[in-house]
Amino acid sequence: MEAIGSKRWVIPEGYIPPASMANGDRALLSHETACLLNTGDADAHVRITLFFTDREPVGPYEITLGARRTLHLRFNDLDDPAPVPPGEDYASVIESDVPIVVQHTRLDSRAAEVSLLSTMAYPAD
Amino acid sequence: MEAIGSKRWVIPEGYIPPASMANGDRALLSHETACLLNTGDADAHVRITLFFTDREPVGPYEITLGARRTLHLRFNDLDDPAPVPPGEDYASVIESDVPIVVQHTRLDSRAAEVSLLSTMAYPAD
Amino acid sequence: MEAIGSKRWVIPEGYIPPASMANGDRALLSHETACLLNTGDADAHVRITLFFTDREPVGPYEITLGARRTLHLRFNDLDDPAPVPPGEDYASVIESDVPIVVQHTRLDSRAAEVSLLSTMAYPAD
Amino acid sequence: MEAIGSKRWVIPEGYIPPASMANGDRALLSHETACLLNTGDADAHVRITLFFTDREPVGPYEITLGARRTLHLRFNDLDDPAPVPPGEDYASVIESDVPIVVQHTRLDSRAAEVSLLSTMAYPAD
Repeated sequence: MEAIGSKRWVIPEGYIPPASMANGDRALLSHETACLLNTGDADAHVRITLFFTDREPVGPYEITLGARRTLHLRFNDLDDPAPVPPGEDYASVIESDVPIVVQHTRLDSRAAEVSLLSTMAYPAD
Repeated sequence: MEAIGSKRWVIPEGYIPPASMANGDRALLSHETACLLNTGDADAHVRITLFFTDREPVGPYEITLGARRTLHLRFNDLDDPAPVPPGEDYASVIESDVPIVVQHTRLDSRAAEVSLLSTMAYPAD
Repeated sequence: MEAIGSKRWVIPEGYIPPASMANGDRALLSHETACLLNTGDADAHVRITLFFTDREPVGPYEITLGARRTLHLRFNDLDDPAPVPPGEDYASVIESDVPIVVQHTRLDSRAAEVSLLSTMAYPAD
Repeated sequence: MEAIGSKRWVIPEGYIPPASMANGDRALLSHETACLLNTGDADAHVRITLFFTDREPVGPYEITLGARRTLHLRFNDLDDPAPVPPGEDYASVIESDVPIVVQHTRLDSRAAEVSLLSTMAYPAD
């Protein structure tokens, strides 16, 4: 399939809840995800920059997304150049050398139950 | 009414929760849905391709959506050429021979309560 | 302020949950809403058409949205030409004679707790 | 990074739930947020106008968003020219002198658990 989407995406909302339900497995830990899809036949080299409320941006975080693959990337798992602190507001810009599509999701299990939000990211070529 | 929308839509987020609340009826089982609307006067022939994290795409899944009809298609119900495995990350591209509009929704009842997410899919003609 | 938005919007997902939590007031009853905003200085004459899975479209439902006003219209409250049956899948097209902006929201209180979803509708001038 | 986005954004849905869970800290109080991101190298001067069901618009609320910064602005915290009344439907238009990106989120803790919704706002340059 041909490459679909945009080479730059923006997610203004970012917040990793600082707690999770007791006894939850990894799937139910509070997390934020950027779901990336590369429909094309070339690998995508992706760079993520994080923005904060009262300090300079951090990045780039570099990820390779294979041809014809999706990656549901947890911001919780980013650690180079620095981990994303839970409980701090952030935002992200996601850039790729080939078109991709990006959707943003949070699972929040601070309370006893699961809560979800999702939205397509903002395409900004 | 004339046909409205795009002939290609993308949903990077896909995940069928592998469990559901006890004693839920079909409406409350954990599921993911692609809500399709065909406002036009010709049937839509729809092809869905699924993408995964570490294997090649699967599809097409073929669906006919009648003129002036909506179909809230559960990914859980797809089985030809292969069912969608619960608990595995996926993404989807939805193609139609006439313009349609697509919205993505998940109902998650892994915990005791219901959680919902929804977003318009990404139009990519 | 000038009129902002599109004269036609589409919401493929529609479903009024057929039950609600016990003892909830009106705010907590399960409902679906089309949030309409008319920023301009002329009233908006809005027509809503509903689409279903296995029968012909129903409408138009006609609403007047005043200049510089918002209306968070519950689909539950529509009754002319016919009420929207709870528990049945539907979709909607919202047309206006002046530009408006439309967002879709559901509050689901079938279980003991509240669950929410929302997305911007699809603009289709 | 260059400035990304639009100079005008619209959020038709607005509603601050009039109650919150007992014993919640600030993070878990019911609230609505406009998440603003200014990727550029010049400060953004932002003006918010609120629309209501049966009275004239209120505003502008004026906020400065620093260069290369995000602000997750709670509508609950707005008070000049007037606070946003909980339990009343509203809508918002967000204008900036430089491009920004805006996402809308609500956390609802009226019931015992947390519920979330989010969507990208509507860009309307």
